[in-house]
Amino acid sequence: MIVLVAKYHVKPGQMDAVIGHLKTMAPLVKANEPGCAYYTASRARDDENLLMLVEHYTDEDALAQHREMPHFKDIIEGKVVPLLEKRERELFDLTVG
Amino acid sequence: MIVLVAKYHVKPGQMDAVIGHLKTMAPLVKANEPGCAYYTASRARDDENLLMLVEHYTDEDALAQHREMPHFKDIIEGKVVPLLEKRERELFDLTVG
Repeated sequence: MIVLVAKYHVKPGQMDAVIGHLKTMAPLVKANEPGCAYYTASRARDDENLLMLVEHYTDEDALAQHREMPHFKDIIEGKVVPLLEKRERELFDLTVG
Repeated sequence: MIVLVAKYHVKPGQMDAVIGHLKTMAPLVKANEPGCAYYTASRARDDENLLMLVEHYTDEDALAQHREMPHFKDIIEGKVVPLLEKRERELFDLTVG
């Protein structure tokens, strides 16, 4: 299982809007992406403008397909990214659990 | 839900040993800590000595109790920590998913 950790540095005052978009995104991922086994976002406690997304993909294809999905392009690229200062992306391989 | 992300910077050559200890730890957490809803470790793809633990706790008590558990003291503090260069710890609140 591939673990994608994305850190979203949100523009001040835009956190609620970004969370709203991600709450729209999550069920669409669940309904349309069987290769995405886990899709979560969490707010950092020590930085009010930081969100961490942790997502699990069954394989490289599922990971690649995620970024080609209409809901990804519409919501993440179209609505969320303009509300971010920057994004960081790290990949891991699930080893325990 | 509280999300704890711990990054273990493992001493060179000790990764397999640390993973072995965490594989022993995971079922003990599951069996003894109902307040821990999720306990995973993943290997970074861009750093062969980096492990990321993502853990979910139902509340502050569950998070605090985790560090008082005999298996935490025995395995993490007793066996894993000596094999680490350093640990980083971040707390988040689960917001989506």
